[in-house]
Amino acid sequence: MAAAATASRLLSAGTKIIAVGRNYAAHAKELGNAVPKEPVLFMKPTSSYLQNGGTIEVPHPLEALDHEVELAVVIGKKARDVAEAAAMDYVGGYALALDMTAREIQSAAKSAGLPWTVAKGQDTFTPISTVLPKSMVVDPDNLELWLKVDEEIRQKGSTKDMIFKLPFLISHISSIMTLLEGDVILTGTPSGVGPVKVGQKITAGITGLVDIHFDVQRRQKPLSGYVP
Amino acid sequence: MAAAATASRLLSAGTKIIAVGRNYAAHAKELGNAVPKEPVLFMKPTSSYLQNGGTIEVPHPLEALDHEVELAVVIGKKARDVAEAAAMDYVGGYALALDMTAREIQSAAKSAGLPWTVAKGQDTFTPISTVLPKSMVVDPDNLELWLKVDEEIRQKGSTKDMIFKLPFLISHISSIMTLLEGDVILTGTPSGVGPVKVGQKITAGITGLVDIHFDVQRRQKPLSGYVP
Ligand SMILES: [Mg+2]
Ligand SMILES: [Mg+2]
Ligand SMILES: [Mg+2]
Repeated sequence: MAAAATASRLLSAGTKIIAVGRNYAAHAKELGNAVPKEPVLFMKPTSSYLQNGGTIEVPHPLEALDHEVELAVVIGKKARDVAEAAAMDYVGGYALALDMTAREIQSAAKSAGLPWTVAKGQDTFTPISTVLPKSMVVDPDNLELWLKVDEEIRQKGSTKDMIFKLPFLISHISSIMTLLEGDVILTGTPSGVGPVKVGQKITAGITGLVDIHFDVQRRQKPLSGYVP
Repeated sequence: MAAAATASRLLSAGTKIIAVGRNYAAHAKELGNAVPKEPVLFMKPTSSYLQNGGTIEVPHPLEALDHEVELAVVIGKKARDVAEAAAMDYVGGYALALDMTAREIQSAAKSAGLPWTVAKGQDTFTPISTVLPKSMVVDPDNLELWLKVDEEIRQKGSTKDMIFKLPFLISHISSIMTLLEGDVILTGTPSGVGPVKVGQKITAGITGLVDIHFDVQRRQKPLSGYVP
């Protein structure tokens, strides 16, 4: 269990989440986006993590958030300018994560040419499983990811359909910025994204490896900085 | 000097940088942007910090980056849903920072409705001074910020011209995401942004409080993830 204990400590050591957008062709298409020529990258703060069993909070005045189930790659050691051939040596483990998205806010930001931080970065917007040690994940390029809202299957896809594979993503991102121990790469979502409403429940998993569940509730405190 | 030692430890404890765009009307205008109705927020990774005296690296194939001199607010303790009236209690110190920007990459991202992470988040893209303890900064709303490229003054402005003031920014951001000890808010840049080229030097300061200087050089290693 030493590997599991080390792995679970990784997330709290991390200082960033780099998320990849549009990394499955079918998902790019469902949102009307072109398949990208290079990875679409954005950041989420580690303050948005939510442990398994927690409550996803939908901020006022929204009634729902979109779910995106994603394989999270957890970096095991400092990585800068890593070659694709060596990239998997920098993986410390894997986790299952949800990239919760306030789609209306994101759409408005996209139209205005603005960043997605408010749409993607709020507290509880990155529900995540415990970290699976690398030794438990024999073939990360062939994992089935699934997500249910209440009893309805919404997403089911395989990491084999990623446009940019893990070694490329790690190499590419490490050429832009240093990845540190515990940093997380969210590798994009398969098709089937859609709203989960206040009062519903999400379950999601990597078939055969892990599953996670979350309640979705209204956030009690409104955005205090806004003048209503 | 206890306050100074505590303050300088803050940055290494931090896990995020939240940057505010277009927070000075004259700067919004110079880039052809509207004055925003709410703060434009984006993230930079803490791996982009560069200590005073370091070398800003311009990645291939760029020949220059844009400089943006900004007041950095360093959070002193966990802040969530903080009221404007109490917001300044959560400040642990201040610093002078440069929000280095690959403007061509940012412009392409804006046109495509994509995030600014690659344009803003690369290593050395957030040069920053040591942290000034709060006690040294009597009136943060009336600081003169300046920046020179070689011997030419490029930016000179006052924090009194911020559209969104510090208490509002801290309150507003803390209603979106929890701010933690050592997190940094970059509060936007006054007008005068422009390119600094490979081989040039930047000096910048807060008049009467601190100054910083950096060389600008070509980054030796190209983006390794790209196939040329
Ligand atoms: Mg996603
Ligand atoms: Mg961002
Ligand atoms: Mg800026």
